[in-house]
Amino acid sequence: MKVRTANGTSDIRAVWFENGKVRMIDQRRLPHELVFVAFDDYRNVTESIRNMTTRGAPSIGAAAAYGMCLAALAKEDLGKAADEIRSARPTANDLFYAVDHMMMRLADGDDPIAAADGYAQSMVDKCVRIGEYGAPLIRNGDRIMTHCNAGALATVDVGTALAPIRKAWADGRRFFVYASETRPRLQGMQLTAWELGQEGIDHAIIPDGASGHFIRKDVDMIITGADRIAANGDFANKIGTFEKAVLAKEFGVPFYVAAPASTFDFKTRTGDDIVIEDRPEEEVTMIGGVRIAPAGSPALNPSFDMTPAKYVTGFITEKGILRPNEISKVKE
Amino acid sequence: MKVRTANGTSDIRAVWFENGKVRMIDQRRLPHELVFVAFDDYRNVTESIRNMTTRGAPSIGAAAAYGMCLAALAKEDLGKAADEIRSARPTANDLFYAVDHMMMRLADGDDPIAAADGYAQSMVDKCVRIGEYGAPLIRNGDRIMTHCNAGALATVDVGTALAPIRKAWADGRRFFVYASETRPRLQGMQLTAWELGQEGIDHAIIPDGASGHFIRKDVDMIITGADRIAANGDFANKIGTFEKAVLAKEFGVPFYVAAPASTFDFKTRTGDDIVIEDRPEEEVTMIGGVRIAPAGSPALNPSFDMTPAKYVTGFITEKGILRPNEISKVKE
Repeated sequence: MKVRTANGTSDIRAVWFENGKVRMIDQRRLPHELVFVAFDDYRNVTESIRNMTTRGAPSIGAAAAYGMCLAALAKEDLGKAADEIRSARPTANDLFYAVDHMMMRLADGDDPIAAADGYAQSMVDKCVRIGEYGAPLIRNGDRIMTHCNAGALATVDVGTALAPIRKAWADGRRFFVYASETRPRLQGMQLTAWELGQEGIDHAIIPDGASGHFIRKDVDMIITGADRIAANGDFANKIGTFEKAVLAKEFGVPFYVAAPASTFDFKTRTGDDIVIEDRPEEEVTMIGGVRIAPAGSPALNPSFDMTPAKYVTGFITEKGILRPNEISKVKE
Repeated sequence: MKVRTANGTSDIRAVWFENGKVRMIDQRRLPHELVFVAFDDYRNVTESIRNMTTRGAPSIGAAAAYGMCLAALAKEDLGKAADEIRSARPTANDLFYAVDHMMMRLADGDDPIAAADGYAQSMVDKCVRIGEYGAPLIRNGDRIMTHCNAGALATVDVGTALAPIRKAWADGRRFFVYASETRPRLQGMQLTAWELGQEGIDHAIIPDGASGHFIRKDVDMIITGADRIAANGDFANKIGTFEKAVLAKEFGVPFYVAAPASTFDFKTRTGDDIVIEDRPEEEVTMIGGVRIAPAGSPALNPSFDMTPAKYVTGFITEKGILRPNEISKVKE
């Protein structure tokens, strides 16, 4: 992704390996400061995953792979390192997948740096393909809406929902992006708007509740990411996605979901089988450590919602754009 | 409205007159502190409207009426007082209406206190009627959603959307209220949840983007207020209302609008003729004086949205519950 620095524009990733160290953007400091951190001990990488210096399942997976790389280079106990890294976050499947992948590659005697770089690069390659398939959907003058952050910060580079947007812009087309702020954690405001600003892509932040107002009068296309896609095409994504999809259908606006094949979970039959995580109510009732809600008023904070397949125009994958009834093709 | 104080529970209004002074809740301090202020000079009342110590068009109207009352009691220049009070806020029609009403009553030689009390009481009476008509819609065990604050704080007492909720609860029925937080100014979190908590009504705050998630799985009825209702039944209300109405229709959930007859504007033909106010982007990009958005990322902040009449189940008015095609009856 492009970022603006004191020396002009740099092209960087959310997580990478350079001169013997794992380097990453400290996403907790965004959008206010662009700060890079570097670690040469896998224990510090583990902590960076735990404390959310890096976030987004694919970026977490890449950090975990590089952590295993550091452990191998330092000739540490790999089983112990694997256990510690796996314990950093409880639910991100990419974390476990990346550690297992590295254990196999290292057991095969592969070069640690090449193996970890290969893991990170494979995610970026998929995002590039998603961008190439999705970009032709975007026309000059379009008004596009996205939600939460399915950008380069979450996926090492390029992003999923932001991949077609980046590619169409790089190809010279000019359009406008609505980034809904995504309460309670504001990833749309603080991460997506920041990425769009770094790339110079025209955009504005809107309150989540203004989505319907703009969909009715001004939006040509909606693109979001997905956290999990069930066998029937129902999908889970950040809370606030579902209502945009219903409004899009009501007003004839195409609704696309951008995700790599690894997000499709054919063992989950329908969206109703996806468990929705309830997160702490303090994410809603407090800002910056200060309570903003009335004392004694509880809050509900479902982290994701489920959108039935019938509201989806198409899934933009690294294997092409698939309608909901065609998604078994991602297995081919 | 009931409020909890150090001495137990009191029954108070947002604005009232007592022992020679205009008294009001300082709504800027809610929900963190319940502070009352008192003024014996109309100039302080004018300032309290300007600086939003009191807000909500009917409460502003009542404060203005009491301001004129103070000017009359002090034998001040009524024309000058009227001009100053009218200048306190630019757009609230109730403000101008209340000042004109008091000028006529005072010119007729009416008692200033009785005239102002009568003005405030007429709004409360309408809200009570709205509550009586709307309460039978609410059954034991219902799950009800509201948005923004159409409560006692905004309307001297009782509220519009909250009137049926208060009445059904007082009648002994037990149910649950979802208060969507209403970004950017959080009136749902900070005022509606506070009012519900004071009354002991079961409720929870939700992020605006979680509305669809709960409407699909758990909501039996939605009630909101309205800022203006056009002749064809289209209506404007706080941003975020429209998408709830679309989702309600999609999932067969009744959607009611509670408003007095004075909110119906038959000179406005359809909702497309209602001008939507764009408010400063800093309401979205800053919290407590601190910028939370990326530098250089603009925000859009439409204060209201417009909901077409076809999404409305009924209008709960002081003259009964009317379907969209029956609203001309409020003129009778």
